[in-house]
Amino acid sequence: MVKPIEYADASPEVRAVFDEIKAARGVPDVNNFWKYLAHHPESLRRTWDSIKEVMRPGELDALTKELIYIAVSITNGCEYCIASHTAAARKKGMSDGMLGELIAVVGMANETNRLVQGWRVPVDEAFRD
Amino acid sequence: MVKPIEYADASPEVRAVFDEIKAARGVPDVNNFWKYLAHHPESLRRTWDSIKEVMRPGELDALTKELIYIAVSITNGCEYCIASHTAAARKKGMSDGMLGELIAVVGMANETNRLVQGWRVPVDEAFRD
Amino acid sequence: MVKPIEYADASPEVRAVFDEIKAARGVPDVNNFWKYLAHHPESLRRTWDSIKEVMRPGELDALTKELIYIAVSITNGCEYCIASHTAAARKKGMSDGMLGELIAVVGMANETNRLVQGWRVPVDEAFRD
Amino acid sequence: MVKPIEYADASPEVRAVFDEIKAARGVPDVNNFWKYLAHHPESLRRTWDSIKEVMRPGELDALTKELIYIAVSITNGCEYCIASHTAAARKKGMSDGMLGELIAVVGMANETNRLVQGWRVPVDEAFRD
Amino acid sequence: MVKPIEYADASPEVRAVFDEIKAARGVPDVNNFWKYLAHHPESLRRTWDSIKEVMRPGELDALTKELIYIAVSITNGCEYCIASHTAAARKKGMSDGMLGELIAVVGMANETNRLVQGWRVPVDEAFRD
Amino acid sequence: MVKPIEYADASPEVRAVFDEIKAARGVPDVNNFWKYLAHHPESLRRTWDSIKEVMRPGELDALTKELIYIAVSITNGCEYCIASHTAAARKKGMSDGMLGELIAVVGMANETNRLVQGWRVPVDEAFRD
Repeated sequence: MVKPIEYADASPEVRAVFDEIKAARGVPDVNNFWKYLAHHPESLRRTWDSIKEVMRPGELDALTKELIYIAVSITNGCEYCIASHTAAARKKGMSDGMLGELIAVVGMANETNRLVQGWRVPVDEAFRD
Repeated sequence: MVKPIEYADASPEVRAVFDEIKAARGVPDVNNFWKYLAHHPESLRRTWDSIKEVMRPGELDALTKELIYIAVSITNGCEYCIASHTAAARKKGMSDGMLGELIAVVGMANETNRLVQGWRVPVDEAFRD
Repeated sequence: MVKPIEYADASPEVRAVFDEIKAARGVPDVNNFWKYLAHHPESLRRTWDSIKEVMRPGELDALTKELIYIAVSITNGCEYCIASHTAAARKKGMSDGMLGELIAVVGMANETNRLVQGWRVPVDEAFRD
Repeated sequence: MVKPIEYADASPEVRAVFDEIKAARGVPDVNNFWKYLAHHPESLRRTWDSIKEVMRPGELDALTKELIYIAVSITNGCEYCIASHTAAARKKGMSDGMLGELIAVVGMANETNRLVQGWRVPVDEAFRD
Repeated sequence: MVKPIEYADASPEVRAVFDEIKAARGVPDVNNFWKYLAHHPESLRRTWDSIKEVMRPGELDALTKELIYIAVSITNGCEYCIASHTAAARKKGMSDGMLGELIAVVGMANETNRLVQGWRVPVDEAFRD
Repeated sequence: MVKPIEYADASPEVRAVFDEIKAARGVPDVNNFWKYLAHHPESLRRTWDSIKEVMRPGELDALTKELIYIAVSITNGCEYCIASHTAAARKKGMSDGMLGELIAVVGMANETNRLVQGWRVPVDEAFRD
């Protein structure tokens, strides 16, 4: 029932966000994610502002942040998120080998998380605050 | 009911793995994780061999791999895993600022993953294989 | 391999549940959910009886219950569940604006859940039992 | 704020369920799970009736059902559920070796689930309905 | 290793957010959540601004938003989040009976989500966009 | 962007693993899972070696292990994993009735896991280590 909102049909406040995204990323159109969020302009604005702030390079570089993002998306099983952020990470320099290692670590972390929970391992004294 | 298996009470095959871990990490004793896994020596051996292989530096450096590991553990809500790998990441150079940014990206990724699923966003043509 | 069981091919005990669902909802046919559950008639009967009891208006009205249901389904990433209960909620009065706010809250809750777990926030004394 | 409801303080309808549980399991008192559910007598009654039906031996024996239950609880990270159903499975014959293998499979399944999602593996033609 | 940052030890930018929270909620001190987030002032500011915007009454009232929040937190197994938002919801009028029904719906939704996924139920034509 | 690697295009080390899988399972070709993992030969080798070890009959028979595997995959919502391991379990003797009971237990376990977390049930003294 919900359809993407295209630029031509968007309200001025939605267009303003779309324009910012297109300018920031140097793309002719925004992804489906933004076209669906546009149904709730407040979410669109807030999410764009937050993503800009959170994903910009800081003590972690932009590529490392994308890798972390993908790790979460794989663990949550969000197909769209994996697809779009894998594409974004490739643009920022992720090689095939890096993707292979990333997925291996995510798989291993999910396994060991369950081993910990299955064996009911208590936190070591040394790791306590 | 399940208790950690201490070195003194461990079988030779368990001791052999404990010895490898202590040597590889330069620590006097292994963490609870390994002492619980020791109840299933096959899991202990297989997990240690896999972790060594997966977590060693490759196209991704060892610290980046730890950050990915923590991202998964936060998303899974595994307290022990977050605690132990935060400690491991600090040893490999993670600063307080890096931890702050890591958690911010993980939080944001979990939020946007749900926005995608809630709006039922279809994968863009450009992200398809 | 598993196919939906249509009314014409259903056993009497399955038809009895299908008839109840159609009468309760005033629809000419049941959804795929029920046609698949029909492979295990005991699950079909138990689930229909439970859903009737749990989802009927009580101290929470029927629409609020649907919103809670959708929130869970988004968090679990269950596409079918989001689609079918979004349709159900619209019939019970959910507007586009309400859906937008619902998804925003679900996104935010998922973000802050991870911030809590990432920072390993202890429960405040005031929230303890 | 929420406290367990003890038998002495329970309403007749809650006591009736408690009595059934004690008789069915041959125990002098019910677990905390039931004492908390008692705050919502309708949930208490419905859950007990459903668990009796779902967990009784059928084409799968009672122990296999407990193992499946534990697998889900580990994957969801539900500490109480792991603890209580591990105890229940032991009573039904689960050995230490079986527990070790169970956790190993759960860990492995969680890993390979993420490998599948990370590599975005499409369903093989042979597995399609 | 990470400790809560108390008001007395906080930087001016952190104190500014703490002051806003205390004023908005009419409380003498902020919860642990904010004291931990204060380690990353940017997250503290962004999260407070977002929560204010997302959780304020709109087409959904403030209590309904809290119920949705709790539903997500239960599904994610975030103990702190359940505890703090249950307290918040009680202040906004949630009765014991409402809590009982909320948890019943969340449990039922988690069950049916898995029934859907286990039976691999395809989305009905009527629910497709 | 990522495509399956067919046998004809595979490196010798990938072919070696493919050959082992085909021989062990008596199939003319491997599933997509392996053809995608082949992009990271180290993961391919390690995963095949681990799965062989973990899934072989031990104190738990091979079918019980498949059931546990499916339970995890349903709980994680991994469509490919459910499809492929349902097929594998059928080959090892899973009947339609067993599948029906399996899914019923998985659904019930997911429900009661959330009831536990929603009511914040503390672990009974008897279940503590």
